[in-house]
Amino acid sequence: MKDTDMITDRDNALFEAGIKLGALYHQFTGSPVNLKTVKSLEMAIQESISVQPFARDITVSIDREAITSKVNGEFGYCELEGRMLDVRITICYKTIMADVSLAYDLELDYPLMKIDKVYSSNQS
Amino acid sequence: MKDTDMITDRDNALFEAGIKLGALYHQFTGSPVNLKTVKSLEMAIQESISVQPFARDITVSIDREAITSKVNGEFGYCELEGRMLDVRITICYKTIMADVSLAYDLELDYPLMKIDKVYSSNQS
Amino acid sequence: MKDTDMITDRDNALFEAGIKLGALYHQFTGSPVNLKTVKSLEMAIQESISVQPFARDITVSIDREAITSKVNGEFGYCELEGRMLDVRITICYKTIMADVSLAYDLELDYPLMKIDKVYSSNQS
Amino acid sequence: MKDTDMITDRDNALFEAGIKLGALYHQFTGSPVNLKTVKSLEMAIQESISVQPFARDITVSIDREAITSKVNGEFGYCELEGRMLDVRITICYKTIMADVSLAYDLELDYPLMKIDKVYSSNQS
Repeated sequence: MKDTDMITDRDNALFEAGIKLGALYHQFTGSPVNLKTVKSLEMAIQESISVQPFARDITVSIDREAITSKVNGEFGYCELEGRMLDVRITICYKTIMADVSLAYDLELDYPLMKIDKVYSSNQS
Repeated sequence: MKDTDMITDRDNALFEAGIKLGALYHQFTGSPVNLKTVKSLEMAIQESISVQPFARDITVSIDREAITSKVNGEFGYCELEGRMLDVRITICYKTIMADVSLAYDLELDYPLMKIDKVYSSNQS
Repeated sequence: MKDTDMITDRDNALFEAGIKLGALYHQFTGSPVNLKTVKSLEMAIQESISVQPFARDITVSIDREAITSKVNGEFGYCELEGRMLDVRITICYKTIMADVSLAYDLELDYPLMKIDKVYSSNQS
Repeated sequence: MKDTDMITDRDNALFEAGIKLGALYHQFTGSPVNLKTVKSLEMAIQESISVQPFARDITVSIDREAITSKVNGEFGYCELEGRMLDVRITICYKTIMADVSLAYDLELDYPLMKIDKVYSSNQS
């Protein structure tokens, strides 16, 4: 067996980090929202994902300006879109911590998920 | 054109009521939840659906006992299931009010959506 | 008890119709899709909703032009949005049939759900 | 900067793998399904996730026995649950391939996502 074949804590930390972002995105986008209700939606997303395995820390922020520009004039609400989300998650898997994020990438015109930092759970 | 073909406020009130329950159910079931986070999830569901057209009033209650019995021993959370939900919605469409609900029906073993009351928006 | 308080087959037909559209919308919007996969997504949505109570007939059509214009240049796919959907559902509740639809309303800039026709299940 | 801080292709492969499984799970669980429609749902899930970035290969299999045991006697369908899913995904991120899976773990009573193999994209 080659070295590359061993699955490490680091591998699992990144894998778990991806799961949380994919889950969050596809569970909550589409939710009806407006400026009056955005706070409770942020809170619920944050708390919901925080109960999942290996999630150490999570902050969820929804772009108020994007909501304002998307709210339907007739009906007074819009749907939560991926590009409105700014999410930061820290995963701790045994010896390894991983910071990952979801944020709208203007250049790619895409809600981009990426790895920000990987480090030992001893340093932090 | 026969009388039956005319679409009434009452028809629309019931149609809108169904939309809200179907939307809520399929948007939010599957959300990770435990006893510490259930309150924020209830609040978010309630506020999210309240912004939709013709929704006058809504209360969402998630069954704590069902959560307790479903929480995974290893991981400390479960997913929101339809049968954990007790939802009451009042729709107001012009002259008509409709009270509808979603609640677990033990006999049918089914999260049942039903019409509870239809009445004039003048009486209420 | 006044006449208005009695819940009729017609009420239930419209209520059930609303449930199906709300369910479909919030279950499937957000699904990754492109022109190569749109057919299987249409089929799955159609068949999935067809198993629900009182659904007699359903057709689901996803707007290819909308997909083409939304597909991300870098990644080659987009998400299913409500405004890409054209859905026709016929509900049969005992004596009553109801035809309802979901289609993008250009003027309202909104994926509009509406009642198209209500009629006796004997005439059809 | 320490070695551990550099983000590698391997990190990204695992991160992307997790995203796909989390997304798939929370997008499609809850879908109404029975034995007649299970095939089209499998196909749609498979094709939908296949369009996402870095997804090289994916197979989705839904447990027919689990559906049979869960189908509601009165209504003839059930909802897709995570524990009904057996999913295998191969991610290719530049030089690295990762095989991951979602399958019901009987002992944990949990739909477990895990890393099966990580290897160079040259060997395969």
